[in-house]
Amino acid sequence: MSGVSGMPKKPVIALLGGGQLGRMFLENALRYDVGVHLLDPDPDCSCAHLASRFVQGSFDDRDTVLRFAKDADVVGIEIEHVSVEALAELKAQGKTVIPDPDVLRTIKDKGLQKQFYREHGIPTADFALITDKSEIAAHASLLPAYLKSRTGGYDGKGVMALNDLSDADAAFDGPCVIERKADIALELAVLVVRSAIGTTVVYDPVEMVFDPRFNLVDHLRAPARIPPNTARDAQILARRVADAFNAPGLYAVEMFLTKQGELWVNETAPRAHNSGHHTIEACASSQFDQLLRLYMGWPLGDASLHSKAAMINLVGEGGTGPMAVKGLDDVLHVPGTFLHLYGKRETRTGRKMGHVTVVAATDAELDQATAVTKVHCKVVPALERAATDNQ
Amino acid sequence: MSGVSGMPKKPVIALLGGGQLGRMFLENALRYDVGVHLLDPDPDCSCAHLASRFVQGSFDDRDTVLRFAKDADVVGIEIEHVSVEALAELKAQGKTVIPDPDVLRTIKDKGLQKQFYREHGIPTADFALITDKSEIAAHASLLPAYLKSRTGGYDGKGVMALNDLSDADAAFDGPCVIERKADIALELAVLVVRSAIGTTVVYDPVEMVFDPRFNLVDHLRAPARIPPNTARDAQILARRVADAFNAPGLYAVEMFLTKQGELWVNETAPRAHNSGHHTIEACASSQFDQLLRLYMGWPLGDASLHSKAAMINLVGEGGTGPMAVKGLDDVLHVPGTFLHLYGKRETRTGRKMGHVTVVAATDAELDQATAVTKVHCKVVPALERAATDNQ
Repeated sequence: MSGVSGMPKKPVIALLGGGQLGRMFLENALRYDVGVHLLDPDPDCSCAHLASRFVQGSFDDRDTVLRFAKDADVVGIEIEHVSVEALAELKAQGKTVIPDPDVLRTIKDKGLQKQFYREHGIPTADFALITDKSEIAAHASLLPAYLKSRTGGYDGKGVMALNDLSDADAAFDGPCVIERKADIALELAVLVVRSAIGTTVVYDPVEMVFDPRFNLVDHLRAPARIPPNTARDAQILARRVADAFNAPGLYAVEMFLTKQGELWVNETAPRAHNSGHHTIEACASSQFDQLLRLYMGWPLGDASLHSKAAMINLVGEGGTGPMAVKGLDDVLHVPGTFLHLYGKRETRTGRKMGHVTVVAATDAELDQATAVTKVHCKVVPALERAATDNQ
Repeated sequence: MSGVSGMPKKPVIALLGGGQLGRMFLENALRYDVGVHLLDPDPDCSCAHLASRFVQGSFDDRDTVLRFAKDADVVGIEIEHVSVEALAELKAQGKTVIPDPDVLRTIKDKGLQKQFYREHGIPTADFALITDKSEIAAHASLLPAYLKSRTGGYDGKGVMALNDLSDADAAFDGPCVIERKADIALELAVLVVRSAIGTTVVYDPVEMVFDPRFNLVDHLRAPARIPPNTARDAQILARRVADAFNAPGLYAVEMFLTKQGELWVNETAPRAHNSGHHTIEACASSQFDQLLRLYMGWPLGDASLHSKAAMINLVGEGGTGPMAVKGLDDVLHVPGTFLHLYGKRETRTGRKMGHVTVVAATDAELDQATAVTKVHCKVVPALERAATDNQ
């Protein structure tokens, strides 16, 4: 066929997962001349109709992934729960695979991830690995602690507090990490981009404020309100993590600043991350743009912040159903405020449905716009419209 | 059906035309929860696969447009050559139609458009309307002049210079405007957004630099390098044009600053415009975002420039064929430089294939990045790859 059309092949990126991270990746990738193929089990997922080609299927099934990515030049992910075995085979076939399958294998298992930090001298909370909850008592010296399933946890699932041994009865079974509770002053996240030739760019540290109801980020601030020395140390530590992984990728390094002033790595996501959404509006090159540059082997972009920024997750409230956004007008008329809705069919209490980014020159403006957004903007189930609206 | 699903209808925007303006509109619209349906004759057009629904068909055919937009809430355009008759009928059916069909009818006919300016006291180059080139001699006092076809012209087509009466022989036939040549110091463009309730926001004037080879904008500068009083006068004049049209819409008002220091309106486009592409990166709310806000009845966005900006069109050179971009790396590594490729299948000499936006704090940085882009970045036909690349 090639001799007939004379058309050079456009580079194809095969992406595993079609949620909001894929959607924001596509928004940016549309500005370039690349093809993006998507695999997701849900035909109504956020970006099913935006991809050059959409395939419905399971991204953690080896054969499905191998078939899907057969003709791709680059294979990427937007979620960790994918078949690492398939990625390793695709890499062996000579494709560019980001993140590296070995990195993903380490990160997917919280036990291996913690051991990796320990082996590379990366500061992290003290921990022990157990195969079953019956072993908790043997590690009583780590309490108060968090118990984390080694695999399968996500957004606060598979994590519980162990304040004393009496909590052990209610613990989940199976292989876990017990991790000493840090005495946390602040939670930070630092994004690092590492190219195939080992160059890195590091974004400014962001400060995460959690919503205790859902154990999800409620809003984040960039840059984090920390002394310049601490910010520099956090960037150095994040770069050390990316260097230790020693493979091209986008690394979101979550860390604790303890009340004693120490920085401990909590965990790393080898992909675009909720803590980097503000980079779309507040930086020349967003995390999604950097990812595309990595995939294509292009030079890395400028990661500096041109404004202060806040990012507020819009999390579903009030039950399940088709989505309505309350307070849309209140948010849209604030200068420097940007709405993102992820196009999900149905809202549920606690589900991430979108986010709002605010950019401003001063903390005072940022505070005000953030407060307006948090007070007025809610994602709730839509009331059914009158039938006449619905013809 | 409505009672069965309980799903409230998502607002649907029916857009006539699927070129680069539609594509950039979609990039932004993806951040919101709206459906965008597209009509274009070319199934391989820039945004065929990005729309919620794509229909292949002619946007200047009345019945095709009526069928296409039957279930839409809002009807918009990204090109003027559409069926005004269909738009008028859709408006009569109660749909939101932007631009207003009456405005579009006036603007599509350069003769009516000039008369409109004259009737509303909007300064514009002196002119006469003729039905045929045989009438040129009767208007010799306007020469040197431009002869413009009243309908059908685009990007420099249907326009010729009449320096003296000897040029009249080569003139095209049919109804035309003869327009006195302005003594141009600068060409400016000012974008105005006018909401349904008559509020307006006005962008900073931009300065257009033309490439004489193609009579296309070579690059633009925002803000224009003109005295503050002139900038304010240009904004006032552009707002007067939008007020005269007296209908909601996005108006790109092109004007001349004469060597005598007067501002004359050249022509107005009632849609997103090449002279507003820099607003994607240099403003909180881009021209495409404002258009979505108009369609949806949302409050208008912030139009202020947060940086100086330049926009360089990437115009095809060196013939026809599948596209390659030379100098991509040189451009991508300049901080504050943003590439947009429109996803067109084939490049042709003189065809707009993409653009580069540069944002910077100073004119010196802007000059440098613009020069790098212009020297290094070229869209040319791709050499055919080896067959092994093309399996």
